[in-house]
Amino acid sequence: MAGPIARSPLAVPLPDLPPIPGVRLAAAQAGIRYQGRTDLVMVEFAPGTTVAGVFTRNRCPGAPIDWCRAALAGGQARALVVNAGNANVFTGAAGRQATLATAEATAGLLGCDPTTIFLASTGVIGEVLPHARITAALPALHTALAEDAWEQAARGIMTTDTFPKACTRVVSLGGTDVRITGFAKGSGMIAPDMATMLCFVFTDAALPAATLQALLHPAVDASFNRTTVDSDTSTSDTVLLFATGTAGNPPEADTTAFAGALGELLLDLALQVIRDGEGAQKLVRIDVSGATDNRSARRVALAVANSPLVKTAIAGQDANWGRIVMAVGKAGEPADRDRLSVGIGGTWMARDGAVVPGYDEAPVVAHMLGRDIQIAIDLGLGQGADTAWTCDLTHGYIDINGSYRS
Amino acid sequence: MAGPIARSPLAVPLPDLPPIPGVRLAAAQAGIRYQGRTDLVMVEFAPGTTVAGVFTRNRCPGAPIDWCRAALAGGQARALVVNAGNANVFTGAAGRQATLATAEATAGLLGCDPTTIFLASTGVIGEVLPHARITAALPALHTALAEDAWEQAARGIMTTDTFPKACTRVVSLGGTDVRITGFAKGSGMIAPDMATMLCFVFTDAALPAATLQALLHPAVDASFNRTTVDSDTSTSDTVLLFATGTAGNPPEADTTAFAGALGELLLDLALQVIRDGEGAQKLVRIDVSGATDNRSARRVALAVANSPLVKTAIAGQDANWGRIVMAVGKAGEPADRDRLSVGIGGTWMARDGAVVPGYDEAPVVAHMLGRDIQIAIDLGLGQGADTAWTCDLTHGYIDINGSYRS
Repeated sequence: MAGPIARSPLAVPLPDLPPIPGVRLAAAQAGIRYQGRTDLVMVEFAPGTTVAGVFTRNRCPGAPIDWCRAALAGGQARALVVNAGNANVFTGAAGRQATLATAEATAGLLGCDPTTIFLASTGVIGEVLPHARITAALPALHTALAEDAWEQAARGIMTTDTFPKACTRVVSLGGTDVRITGFAKGSGMIAPDMATMLCFVFTDAALPAATLQALLHPAVDASFNRTTVDSDTSTSDTVLLFATGTAGNPPEADTTAFAGALGELLLDLALQVIRDGEGAQKLVRIDVSGATDNRSARRVALAVANSPLVKTAIAGQDANWGRIVMAVGKAGEPADRDRLSVGIGGTWMARDGAVVPGYDEAPVVAHMLGRDIQIAIDLGLGQGADTAWTCDLTHGYIDINGSYRS
Repeated sequence: MAGPIARSPLAVPLPDLPPIPGVRLAAAQAGIRYQGRTDLVMVEFAPGTTVAGVFTRNRCPGAPIDWCRAALAGGQARALVVNAGNANVFTGAAGRQATLATAEATAGLLGCDPTTIFLASTGVIGEVLPHARITAALPALHTALAEDAWEQAARGIMTTDTFPKACTRVVSLGGTDVRITGFAKGSGMIAPDMATMLCFVFTDAALPAATLQALLHPAVDASFNRTTVDSDTSTSDTVLLFATGTAGNPPEADTTAFAGALGELLLDLALQVIRDGEGAQKLVRIDVSGATDNRSARRVALAVANSPLVKTAIAGQDANWGRIVMAVGKAGEPADRDRLSVGIGGTWMARDGAVVPGYDEAPVVAHMLGRDIQIAIDLGLGQGADTAWTCDLTHGYIDINGSYRS
C-alpha cells in the first residue's frame, strides 16, 4: 500500500453493542499478515445455538466457504473463528488442511465436534494460510472470551476497511424481546452475490436452523444483493446468522417482526460497507420504477450502479443524466427510450425521452455537491420497482487497488 | 476538461490509405460543438454501392441508429454523413427531425433517394443536434469531395480520441485484387459524456448487400465484441461496410479470403480503439482455454477484461493472479477451482488450483512493466477457447471521466 488509508468521509460511528446471552467474543494479534493489530477473532456460542448461512456465488470459493457449507448441514454452532490478512483461497490441499486444523483445535478447546465450528478468512488470495499461527493463538483467545468484546471483534476482522461496522436491534418475538446484533467488514470486491464481505449476525432468539435459513436468504437478497462497489464478486463472501436461544421466546412465535428487524439490520450493514467503498466520497442510491417487474428494475438499478462512467461523473459532481440513459440502455432489460425519465435529487431532468425544457439546474447542482446522491429512473413501462446502492469511482479506488501488494 | 489529453502511449501511426474507386471523402468545420477543428465528414459512393451495418445493442439508441436501421433495408448507399460533438441521442422528435433534414439535404445535392444516405453522430447526449449547421456546411463539403481525403475523414470523426485510427488490406476476390479500408473512432465512452465507437469500412469489391451483411456480422463478433474499455455500451455504436463494386470481381466469387481480411481489419481497428482507451497505459490480451465451449470462454475472458480489480492491478504493474481467479469465478460460467491455471506473460503462476511452487517471478515482473500484457487462463474442463482485449484502469480514466462537462 502507498500508505494508510484515510477514514471514509461517509463513515458512521459504532453503536453501543450490549451483550447477547450465550455469545462471548475475543480478538488477538496472531501475526498472520498484519503487524501491530488484531487479526484473529473467536466467538463462542452456548450449546444449542443454531446457525444459518449464505455464501458467495463465485465459482472459485475459498476453503473456508467449502468448510462452512458442509458444517451448515448440522445446523448447530459452538464457535466462529475469523482471520484477516489471508483469504485461504486458491490454496488447494493446503487450504483444506488449514480449515481442518483450525476447526479441530477450536473444537478441542471447547470439547465439541469440529463440524460445529464455523470459519471465515479474508485477505490475500493464493497464499497458504499459516494456520499454525492461528492454532497457537487460540488457547489465549479462548481464555480471553468476554460478553462485551463486540468492538474488538468488529475491528479484528477488518482488512482495508477504514471504520468498524456494526448494528443492533431489539424486536419482539412471540412477546419476548430478543436482540439481533451484527458486524461486518468489506470495502472492495463488493457486488451482488456479496463480496469480500463478511457479515456475522447474532441473536438470543430461539429459532430452529431451518427457520433461520429461511429468514436469512430474503434478508440478504434485499440488502447485500442490492449493493455494489465495483461489480467484482469475492471468493470469500459470507453471511452467518447464529441464534443462541437464550431469550426463551415461545418456540412457534410469529417471525414477521423478527424478519423485518433482520432485514433492516443487514441493509444497515450493507450500506456501511458501501460507505467504506474503496475511495468512496459519495453514497449513491438508485431508485428504479416503472419497470416490467421488480427483477427487471433490480437489474437496471445495478447496471447504473456498476457503470464506471456514471460513477466517475458522480465523483466529478456532474449531473450527467446522459450516462444514466446509456447505463439503462445497456442493462438489456425492457426499456423504451421515448418513455424513459431520469431525475437527480428530486428534480426530473429528462422526461418521456427528452430533456425537460428549462428544468431548474440549481437544486441539481447543489445536490451533486453533497455526500448522499439520489438518482430516480422511471422506465414508464409497468409497476416494477427496486433500489440499488453504490458509491462513486474516484482516484482513491485506483490508489488503493493499483498499488503493489507489498 | 482539465486540459488537452496527451496522445496515448499505445498509439500506432496512421497507415498510407490509397484511393478506393467509387469513394470520395471530405471533412469540414461545421462548428457543431468544437471550434478550430473539423467535425463533419461526408463520404460519397458511386451508384450501385451496397451496404451492411451492425449497431449498438443499447436499448436507448440515438436517432441516427434508428435512421440507419431503416435505411439498411434498401441495401443501397450513395453517401455517409458523420458529425462529431453531438450524438443526437435522447433528443425525441427533434432528433428524428435532424436525421431527416440531414439526409434530405444530402440527397438533394446528390440527386438520390434520402434512404440511400447513412448517418452517424457522436458526442454529447441529450442536446438537440443543431442540424442547420450541418445542412449549411454540406454544399461546400460536396464540392470538396476527393479520392485521397482519408486522413481528413479519419480525423474529422474524432471526439476525444488522441490519434486517428485506420487500417487497409488488399485481398483476392475470385482472382481480382480488391481493397478494404476502414477508419474508426472511440476510446471507450468518451469524455465527458461523449460516447461511442464508430467504424466505417469501404471496399471496391462487388458484393450484394445480403452477402456483405453475412460477412460483417461474424467479423464484428470476432473483433469489437471481444474488446472492452470500461464495460459501458454506447448508445451510438455503429459499424457500416460499403462496397462500391468498382473492382469488377466475378459475381459469385469465393469470399473466404475476403472474410479473413475483413476480420483482420476490424480486429486491427478494434485494438486501435483499445489502445486509445481512456487513460490506457497498457494493452491487455486475455486468452482463455479449456472452457466447456467457446462461448463460455468468451464470457470468462470478458469478465476478467471488465474487472476493475484486475485492471487496476495491471495499472499498478502487479501480477495479481488472485484477482484473476476471482474474476474467473464471478463470470458464472462452468469453472472448477481445482483445475484452474493462470499464467502471465508466458509463465504459469497457478496450476490446477494452487500456486506453482517456486515459479520464476523475474520474467513475470519484467512482463508487467511492459506495454503489452498477456494473461492466460486454462479452465481445464474442455476444448472451448477465446480471447478478449482490454486496457488497464488508471488515474487517467478518472481524470477524463470525472471532470465537469463544461
